Amino acid sequence: MGQIRLGIIGCGIAARELHWPALKTMGDTFRITAVCNHTEPKAQEFAELVGGIPYVLDYRDLIARDDIDAVSIMLPFELNCRVTEDALKTGKHVMVEKPLATDIETSEKMIALCEKYHPLVMMVAENFRYRPLYRRVKVLIDEGRIGNTYGIIWNFFTDVGTGANRKYVSTKWRFEEVYTGGFLIDGGVHITAVLRDLFGEITSVNALTASVNPEAGRFDTMNTQFTMKSGALCSLNQFYSARGVRFNSIHIFGDAGSMLVDNDASKITIMEREKPEYSETTDEERGYVGEYEDFHNAIRTGTPVVSSFHQAYADLKALLAALDSAKTGAVVRID
Amino acid sequence: MGQIRLGIIGCGIAARELHWPALKTMGDTFRITAVCNHTEPKAQEFAELVGGIPYVLDYRDLIARDDIDAVSIMLPFELNCRVTEDALKTGKHVMVEKPLATDIETSEKMIALCEKYHPLVMMVAENFRYRPLYRRVKVLIDEGRIGNTYGIIWNFFTDVGTGANRKYVSTKWRFEEVYTGGFLIDGGVHITAVLRDLFGEITSVNALTASVNPEAGRFDTMNTQFTMKSGALCSLNQFYSARGVRFNSIHIFGDAGSMLVDNDASKITIMEREKPEYSETTDEERGYVGEYEDFHNAIRTGTPVVSSFHQAYADLKALLAALDSAKTGAVVRID
Repeated sequence: MGQIRLGIIGCGIAARELHWPALKTMGDTFRITAVCNHTEPKAQEFAELVGGIPYVLDYRDLIARDDIDAVSIMLPFELNCRVTEDALKTGKHVMVEKPLATDIETSEKMIALCEKYHPLVMMVAENFRYRPLYRRVKVLIDEGRIGNTYGIIWNFFTDVGTGANRKYVSTKWRFEEVYTGGFLIDGGVHITAVLRDLFGEITSVNALTASVNPEAGRFDTMNTQFTMKSGALCSLNQFYSARGVRFNSIHIFGDAGSMLVDNDASKITIMEREKPEYSETTDEERGYVGEYEDFHNAIRTGTPVVSSFHQAYADLKALLAALDSAKTGAVVRID
Repeated sequence: MGQIRLGIIGCGIAARELHWPALKTMGDTFRITAVCNHTEPKAQEFAELVGGIPYVLDYRDLIARDDIDAVSIMLPFELNCRVTEDALKTGKHVMVEKPLATDIETSEKMIALCEKYHPLVMMVAENFRYRPLYRRVKVLIDEGRIGNTYGIIWNFFTDVGTGANRKYVSTKWRFEEVYTGGFLIDGGVHITAVLRDLFGEITSVNALTASVNPEAGRFDTMNTQFTMKSGALCSLNQFYSARGVRFNSIHIFGDAGSMLVDNDASKITIMEREKPEYSETTDEERGYVGEYEDFHNAIRTGTPVVSSFHQAYADLKALLAALDSAKTGAVVRID
């Protein structure tokens, strides 16, 4: 269905390490025609990396170009809304990195763009919605392999202050006052996206927070209880300053069997009464290929995107409710 | 300090499989002189097992005996209060199996006995208070090995409807209407005892319940959030109908390190930043020896018992608050 000419806005870690490795395998569908970063060496370096293409320093110069059909925005989140609307105004389709925003008001402004700029395609780069691991978990659950799901426990323990995560901590914008949710939102929206995709809507939330490492934002530790519309109960532990520990797994309990999803190893294990364990490993790809495929299809055929602004808004809403609950010490209902 | 002559009231699983294996190694401190069960073959069988001693069918005949200094009561919990008081009336020291009771009113009646029958010794057989594994965890935490504890996650997944646990499910009294807490209380008081011993008082509770296997009581699944007075947050998962899974571990997070306690293997592992893991295994004994030692010391020297009625009451209160919270959908404060 032909290449889409893509402009990249923001040449940071996400562009370099997450999007580009996917895009470089997708030459049939996307061709990056220009990139933008306000720091020239970063813009130049990325422009060279993707094939020696033009770069600009101001996003307005990028969206004004005629050789671009769509943009992928990977900026500090607080610029998402303005840059998205400006790109839409010039007739470009938009993919924007998660989180959509970090407050309800801005999210609602983003949602309003959907109607205003229809039929331009708008999507959030929530790669977990496309990750082969979770697609496979969904198939196994839908096939009834563990029966009716009644409980989910997601334990995510890591130490963002050390090792491979250190680069995210050193990203200045993550620690500005405006972004109070810090990693709890940034990492958390991936998790609520998966929870909602696999198990349906969240109806109420209760959360407890702790603050361990001031370098990792205002709060870096949260235990959240979610009640799902299905009746299932869910407990999520996001511990971003867990010393010496790296662990990311989902226990899914059904009335016919249990499933353990190892998010790091992309491995699924099913346990049943008096049966041997079954396990399989999926493609390790983190979903970036799938999200660009969806973006391409939506632009070319008009099919709705899976990772819509509306979905991203709901993912965010559950976490903002959690932070609100932690603050007030009371259960928060989500409509 | 001389043997204490002990009468056993209730010759079921607890007497046979939990208390007797400890008592038979403690001949210097206790000698079982008579046993009681209202089902004659059970009484007779246990009397033979412990050395061919006398047995009676009515507990009143046991507590009336002159050759008994103390009794160990292992009956369906709803008899605890009456039998305890009757034994105290005859001047016997009392150890009674947990839970103390399963409602606040009866617990308070039990607490009132402490003052009324002082200086007779009253204690609850909460073996986890004496288990070498948790004593060692306490030493390591008090030594500052993981710094200040800010988070605790206890995951206990098992399937009481199968395997070695099946015998507990087939115990009829556990499923009578009066015992609505079922395994959540029965197993849960062990856990709240350990949490309170290691991390201090619980100040608020929020819980979600599910019901998977009707054979395992009204509710067999609960996720509970505890807020500790220290400020630490705690998440407890008690899943008693977890298909194909047996898993019982405590993750303890401190600002200097993390600890993983494998309750089944009696193993402690400490993880720190950029250091090799440290691990050790403790004695597998489940604490029954320690509880009888404490009972013996209290009777002979008047020292207060560690596992007092007051402690057991507080252990229970946290779980009743959890069930209450699950019912009302709101956070419950504990005074």
